[in-house]
Amino acid sequence: MYQILLKCLLFNGLNSSEIEELLESFTYRKRKFVKNELIATSGNIVKGINILIAGDVRGEMVDFGGKIIKIEDMQTPKVLAPAFLFGKNNVYPVDIIANCNVEILFIHKDSFLKILQLNKAVLMNYLNIISNQSQFLSTKIKFLSFHSIKGKFAHYIINLSNQSNEKEIFLPLSQSKLASLFGVTRPSLSRVIRELNDTKIISAKGKKLKILDETALIEFLS
Amino acid sequence: MYQILLKCLLFNGLNSSEIEELLESFTYRKRKFVKNELIATSGNIVKGINILIAGDVRGEMVDFGGKIIKIEDMQTPKVLAPAFLFGKNNVYPVDIIANCNVEILFIHKDSFLKILQLNKAVLMNYLNIISNQSQFLSTKIKFLSFHSIKGKFAHYIINLSNQSNEKEIFLPLSQSKLASLFGVTRPSLSRVIRELNDTKIISAKGKKLKILDETALIEFLS
Repeated sequence: MYQILLKCLLFNGLNSSEIEELLESFTYRKRKFVKNELIATSGNIVKGINILIAGDVRGEMVDFGGKIIKIEDMQTPKVLAPAFLFGKNNVYPVDIIANCNVEILFIHKDSFLKILQLNKAVLMNYLNIISNQSQFLSTKIKFLSFHSIKGKFAHYIINLSNQSNEKEIFLPLSQSKLASLFGVTRPSLSRVIRELNDTKIISAKGKKLKILDETALIEFLS
Repeated sequence: MYQILLKCLLFNGLNSSEIEELLESFTYRKRKFVKNELIATSGNIVKGINILIAGDVRGEMVDFGGKIIKIEDMQTPKVLAPAFLFGKNNVYPVDIIANCNVEILFIHKDSFLKILQLNKAVLMNYLNIISNQSQFLSTKIKFLSFHSIKGKFAHYIINLSNQSNEKEIFLPLSQSKLASLFGVTRPSLSRVIRELNDTKIISAKGKKLKILDETALIEFLS
């Protein structure tokens, strides 16, 4: 287990004996689930930190028509719903379901708070995890105001180009991360990038990209 | 200053002598700004926690056309950009400008981390503040997928009614908070509520509300 936790962002900077020592000073539980078992129900209170230590899970929602919508898959050694342990609305935002045989390390909120106070690295890691999520969501909201994928992508690359004051830019995110930020599918984003390349508005080669016609890009913003 | 900090969410549960004792054990600075002075620039690194202890400030963005967009006003004793102190993208998301004579308490990130480790209440408060923000943004994203205000409001009240299994519901948020969650103005939201009331789809009296025609509401969702 400690070998797996070494790769977990929450324990970044700790070695496996440090993780072991830290966890053994507090109470934790291991919970096992079989394929398709419900791990957590949307709306139920998050009572502690859940770390996936074997297998993978999916987040699902049921819409008003009773249709099941898959939100995302999460793999070992991910922390589940980290930004929902504290705050006023500290409930699971979605149902969490096992995709296969799954094992989860559970640390109660009280013990977790003690760990945060005891270990500066874990505190920093946890603050980074939840701040990253908040920053991701707040950027995502900006992009949701542009209805077309071209508008979202144009906004993104003009911003990057303005920051560096260069027409040549390097995309810091993979296409699938970028698609998730824009709230679109990866294939539709790829199609838009190919189209902008073919119409000579940009030239794109992997993550390297050059803005050729900024005026045309700006027109996509309105 | 300690009387003002008593009302700051970050020091919730502490009395003024506890706040004084805590702050005096660490280094902090007071920074003063005059009306319209730039306090922080969008894109610059957030080096510590900034708490407004006198006056009020505004967040502003400049769009690609050079137009200034006001994002929000923040009043004493608000913590500025709390979710941008940690994380990969720990920069101010907007320009922050003084609306009048302003005083800010600044605590460097290193000292702030020590305070978090030393004082469990402040740690919990800070985790609550940034988790609340993340939860607010993640709910907001759900509502942004409905383009009409009627769709957003219908989704919101059907959800509340399903949670309690009652047709009569009590709005837990004020109309202006709700408008901010939906990303719309308060007057437009009021108009929609009035219209739904006048067409007998709901009956609304202040924060008390009854769903009269759920089928009509569900139609607004598509």
